[in-house]
Amino acid sequence: MTTIRCNACGEQASALAWRCTTCEGSLDLAGLPAFDPKLIQVDDYSLWRYAAMLPVQKRFSLGEGMTPLAPVELDGDSFLAKLDYLNPTGSYKDRGTTTLMNHIVGFDVPEVIDNSSGNAGASIAAYASLAGIRARIYVPSATAVESKKKLISLFGGAIVESRQPVADVYAAAQTVTYASHAWSPWFVLGQMTVAWETWEQMGGRAPDAVATPVGHGGLFLGFYRGFRALQEAGLIEAMPRMIAVQSSGVDPVVQAWEQGLESPPTVSASPSVADGILVDAPVRGPQILSALYQTEGCALRVDNESIRTAQRRMTGKGLIIEMTSAVVTAALPQIRQRTGGDATVVLAFTGNGLKNLA
Amino acid sequence: MTTIRCNACGEQASALAWRCTTCEGSLDLAGLPAFDPKLIQVDDYSLWRYAAMLPVQKRFSLGEGMTPLAPVELDGDSFLAKLDYLNPTGSYKDRGTTTLMNHIVGFDVPEVIDNSSGNAGASIAAYASLAGIRARIYVPSATAVESKKKLISLFGGAIVESRQPVADVYAAAQTVTYASHAWSPWFVLGQMTVAWETWEQMGGRAPDAVATPVGHGGLFLGFYRGFRALQEAGLIEAMPRMIAVQSSGVDPVVQAWEQGLESPPTVSASPSVADGILVDAPVRGPQILSALYQTEGCALRVDNESIRTAQRRMTGKGLIIEMTSAVVTAALPQIRQRTGGDATVVLAFTGNGLKNLA
Repeated sequence: MTTIRCNACGEQASALAWRCTTCEGSLDLAGLPAFDPKLIQVDDYSLWRYAAMLPVQKRFSLGEGMTPLAPVELDGDSFLAKLDYLNPTGSYKDRGTTTLMNHIVGFDVPEVIDNSSGNAGASIAAYASLAGIRARIYVPSATAVESKKKLISLFGGAIVESRQPVADVYAAAQTVTYASHAWSPWFVLGQMTVAWETWEQMGGRAPDAVATPVGHGGLFLGFYRGFRALQEAGLIEAMPRMIAVQSSGVDPVVQAWEQGLESPPTVSASPSVADGILVDAPVRGPQILSALYQTEGCALRVDNESIRTAQRRMTGKGLIIEMTSAVVTAALPQIRQRTGGDATVVLAFTGNGLKNLA
Repeated sequence: MTTIRCNACGEQASALAWRCTTCEGSLDLAGLPAFDPKLIQVDDYSLWRYAAMLPVQKRFSLGEGMTPLAPVELDGDSFLAKLDYLNPTGSYKDRGTTTLMNHIVGFDVPEVIDNSSGNAGASIAAYASLAGIRARIYVPSATAVESKKKLISLFGGAIVESRQPVADVYAAAQTVTYASHAWSPWFVLGQMTVAWETWEQMGGRAPDAVATPVGHGGLFLGFYRGFRALQEAGLIEAMPRMIAVQSSGVDPVVQAWEQGLESPPTVSASPSVADGILVDAPVRGPQILSALYQTEGCALRVDNESIRTAQRRMTGKGLIIEMTSAVVTAALPQIRQRTGGDATVVLAFTGNGLKNLA
């Protein structure tokens, strides 16, 4: 029986809660179904092939998930690229959005809100439209990219530009359902499928290491928890080393990891081309750090110039990714220093570069 | 044993030929491996799961194929949407490009050329870069969309703007390998996989009808030939009715079908928002018409206004498609008049609308 628990105080939360009403801590799901390979619906080629492991009734889907895992050669090095930007709305967010929104519509909700720099807002708007409900997306007036705002609008989302989108959305959340890609445990739920797919695509094995861009760490924790579920089911022996990559502009997780802290410190932010991970206070910071320590992983920072170069080089391999995604390629030399050259490394690419052709 | 044969005179052609050197007819592959479901590599989640049915050695891949097949509800009607725009470079072309380019690189080719309004050029450029060879793409200076030219460049393709790209590329093809998405039989080869996927995604059944946008008809013929291979293998009983949709601006196939002709007539072209199918002389016109007649299909035209409306409505369902793709939704009322309301209809969406957010 799946319940919703506060990560800080352990209190149980209600179905549509986005944080603990007692202590304002983040929430996660407890008592999830164990991973059982016999329950995979092998003739479903979306993430809903794992429906038996997802305690959500599927009402709608755009066929999200089961994105390519492609081998990439780069300067004599090679890695596996998880092309999660090929999800329907152009980002990995669709994995979490589909479980979150399918959960929410079970409660006759007429409207949802979220705050987003772009990809999550587009994803939430699209699935809200699909579900026949309204979506209102709070975007930062200073940093939101035009093309992403346009995409949110095209998907039927109402845009609210704000200088303080977080404060505004928290205030609005007192009366409207907050479909938070950062806070909702139902969003992280769907992200676990990326690990299960990778495992299947690798022929029932786990890689030696997985690197993702980290803002709030949704995809990072999805990989970690998904692989943990496989390990608990006896399907993989060792956990992959989890590697969190941040831009040098906003790097609370890297600073915490370097100092051996259990929670990210308060950091100052400087401009970065990685607009999708400008998160100074990750909602599940302690959980991200715990995953790093438990898997002997690491947190790495990369600067703007190396990100730009990495993006260009990926496009030259046929991979049209956005800047934020390119942080993992920019970190590859650092990753190799730690894993060695023979380790099987998966780099997760999160957002579609087609959004930025303007 | 697979050979390359002229559709007009039956002459055998050489491995890199793009049309018959005797009569200038189009080429197709003869003696392809029979479809055998036991040979599907079920743990490969790209179109290379059908490698045994593709007489090409796979050397590189971006994980193309196995795109979602998503149910869509629209005004009380429903259909299955094949989201082929979720291929790596943002269009269905990647299916054909991957088989074409993997074939070509077997012959130590240093450079390829193609002429394209955008999607095919981007796809060819991307896979050429991946293969480590140069690509030169001839684009029509009058109608090519800026964002698509930019994408070709990002993928490493050299752009040649031309007022007569077809004549120019034919001239250049005398000395450089012409990787023609319109002419090459190795391109149509990869398109067949879309039918096989659809069949698998429908649980081993064929739909009652399939509608695609038609320019040169690569995807249309891919569906047709792929389903024909399934029928010849005894895996489906009846062929789906094949439906070709064109814009009212350039509609040679529709005119031919309406008049019961075996070849498309010469048509005049008027401006259309469906920039991906502005083809006045389809390379395999007779083959397209034959498929229409043999399956009791039809060819339908839609106007700019209905295309624009259809695109907006699809985006409101979370499907971010380009105008060209929206022709099939625009044709849905006409399709229903012919198939009846209960028929299972697959609409193929070909190009990613994220390319046009500018």
